[in-house]
Amino acid sequence: MSFRFDLLHRDERTAGRVGVAHTPHGDLPTPVFAPVGTQATVKTLSPDELRELGATLILANTYHLYLRPGSDLVAEMGGLHRFMGWDRPILTDSGGFQVFSLETLRKVSDEGVTFRSHIDGSEHVFSPERAVAIQEELGADIIMCFDECAEPFDRAYSQAAMERTHRWAARCQQAQKRPDQALFGIVQGGIFADLRQESARYLSSLELPGYAIGGLSVGESKEDMHAMLDVTLPLLPEDKPRYLMGVGSPEDLVEGVARGVDIFDCTLPTRLARNGALLTRQGRLNIRNAQYTRDPAPVEEGCTCYTCRHFSRAYLRHLARTEEVLGLRLNTIHNVHFMIHLMGEIRAALLAGTFAEFREAFWAEYTIIPYEIRRANREARKARIAKG
Amino acid sequence: MSFRFDLLHRDERTAGRVGVAHTPHGDLPTPVFAPVGTQATVKTLSPDELRELGATLILANTYHLYLRPGSDLVAEMGGLHRFMGWDRPILTDSGGFQVFSLETLRKVSDEGVTFRSHIDGSEHVFSPERAVAIQEELGADIIMCFDECAEPFDRAYSQAAMERTHRWAARCQQAQKRPDQALFGIVQGGIFADLRQESARYLSSLELPGYAIGGLSVGESKEDMHAMLDVTLPLLPEDKPRYLMGVGSPEDLVEGVARGVDIFDCTLPTRLARNGALLTRQGRLNIRNAQYTRDPAPVEEGCTCYTCRHFSRAYLRHLARTEEVLGLRLNTIHNVHFMIHLMGEIRAALLAGTFAEFREAFWAEYTIIPYEIRRANREARKARIAKG
Repeated sequence: MSFRFDLLHRDERTAGRVGVAHTPHGDLPTPVFAPVGTQATVKTLSPDELRELGATLILANTYHLYLRPGSDLVAEMGGLHRFMGWDRPILTDSGGFQVFSLETLRKVSDEGVTFRSHIDGSEHVFSPERAVAIQEELGADIIMCFDECAEPFDRAYSQAAMERTHRWAARCQQAQKRPDQALFGIVQGGIFADLRQESARYLSSLELPGYAIGGLSVGESKEDMHAMLDVTLPLLPEDKPRYLMGVGSPEDLVEGVARGVDIFDCTLPTRLARNGALLTRQGRLNIRNAQYTRDPAPVEEGCTCYTCRHFSRAYLRHLARTEEVLGLRLNTIHNVHFMIHLMGEIRAALLAGTFAEFREAFWAEYTIIPYEIRRANREARKARIAKG
Repeated sequence: MSFRFDLLHRDERTAGRVGVAHTPHGDLPTPVFAPVGTQATVKTLSPDELRELGATLILANTYHLYLRPGSDLVAEMGGLHRFMGWDRPILTDSGGFQVFSLETLRKVSDEGVTFRSHIDGSEHVFSPERAVAIQEELGADIIMCFDECAEPFDRAYSQAAMERTHRWAARCQQAQKRPDQALFGIVQGGIFADLRQESARYLSSLELPGYAIGGLSVGESKEDMHAMLDVTLPLLPEDKPRYLMGVGSPEDLVEGVARGVDIFDCTLPTRLARNGALLTRQGRLNIRNAQYTRDPAPVEEGCTCYTCRHFSRAYLRHLARTEEVLGLRLNTIHNVHFMIHLMGEIRAALLAGTFAEFREAFWAEYTIIPYEIRRANREARKARIAKG
């Protein structure tokens, strides 16, 4: 079975969309948030837990799996789905982002990229053809064209990298052998609207089954990120899914969907969890904070995740302080639940025609100011009011 | 509801027993192996997983919980069961073993023990009365008398420690306020048969609801351990449960049950798991070993644990090499399943009157020689035979 995307609904007041992607490993309702399983495991979680959390798509990293355990080994073990025990859709990146982030990046030419492994210093070459071949060995449902991820603020470099990314996309398309994987193109162009538009137009002409926006959330402002989405997404074919790579936070889901993004992935919720930062509708809560020492409440009142149904903030703080592995896991469960539940509410609101109101209500409650500071501010305000 | 033990069946050919302990948190079929949850979590596992693994009893450490998060906090949060989300029986040790193992042990007198915390160096005092009070705050179903754990090879010290342990047991019994907790006495006496017998006789006279054998598996030989069980257990009241503290390995369960032990606890299976050493009926298998790199087989053919049903040795090795938390957890699931399943088979064999045969079959297959070495030996032998 090959990949197909059905656009089911368009929001009237925003660019939000509801769809479903059909993949060899089942249907993928969009918009969707994909937790990241860099090394063939979403850190701390079992596939059963991910399924119970309602995860439908996960991302795995080509660069990491190529180095360890090796994509040939994964292929020999029956592919990534079987290897990691996950039977729902998987997306692999191309390795481009990782390779271009390496301090051990050696040589970049049209032919490809020479780099040294961050693990043992051994030398390797990625090219468009090689990146596709590795992803074919891994066997994800959605695979990505090899792209050059430029530092986004330098116009000349952004343009050169974009043009190379275009040449590489055509070569990836040529190199693809497996008909059961959907090869997505990646729009580049830094923070330059005209480059982004040129990139969207060129890649659209390749008639790929889906398109990603790459090179964002790498240091530019949220305004720049939103501006790039606003100029790029309208130029991409409406009947193809749009994937915003490496984004996001809760607020990024709301704002990305409002601009027409269908697929998101980010390590943020799982990484925050391991640091004790828990997501709530009012913002982040740091469970290591002393104020939770004797707090019998769950992380978030009304949350239906396993963690909130069974454990107090006091217990989670104890696990964090004693560096118990279960703490990492219970925190991860909460944050992944938060993201998937939020996306479920977004999708329902889009279908009900109430997404604009949902977005407004979200921002009325949510703050990027840490929860503890906000609570302290609120109590200080109350105290001031009480004093008259 | 208070504690009651029913002895259901005695094996005819060994000293093995089958029973059931009734506790405020449900029935506890014996013999039983208790996984250890030192800091109010069996490392890496959730309470749901423990339940699915068939765990009925877990142990938590008084010393650790007293220091972090504090037994008063645990009491305030509704007790240990509620705090850690475990609604089946819990046993707490008295803190004696930990305190006497500390490098920061300061002063020991009949009154009690002064020590410094291994975490922050703060000074604390444990006495029989204090150890009972702390365990009453924690709220386990089975609690232990405060005992002096002597180095087991010095006769004079073993005798003095045993005598102090007896005086402390009587004080613990006096100090106990909660009627819903079963206070067990601890037999001491090092590796000296007459001391062990004296200890068993004295503690029996206190008519406690259960008895533990302490101070074993601390460096003495297996022969010494077995000899101590052989001389001690026949002197303990038959209608009370017997608990062998801090033991054991798979072979210890088989041999301990054959001598009349009802309850075991040990960190070994969970600690081994985190080091990549997996239990099988043929002995230990080290999953980090290079020979498993491309091995699609489960850890143990026929094992019904979650890990063996879903994942290959190759995947577990990958998780171990990449230091992924999921690996610690999948390994722990396998080892805890192994111990609980083994005890289930032992109990069934006792009831069927086939435990002597089971014990023989166990030893025919099991070896304490690491799995890899045994396999290499077997293959070398095969090669020699093939050559003639």
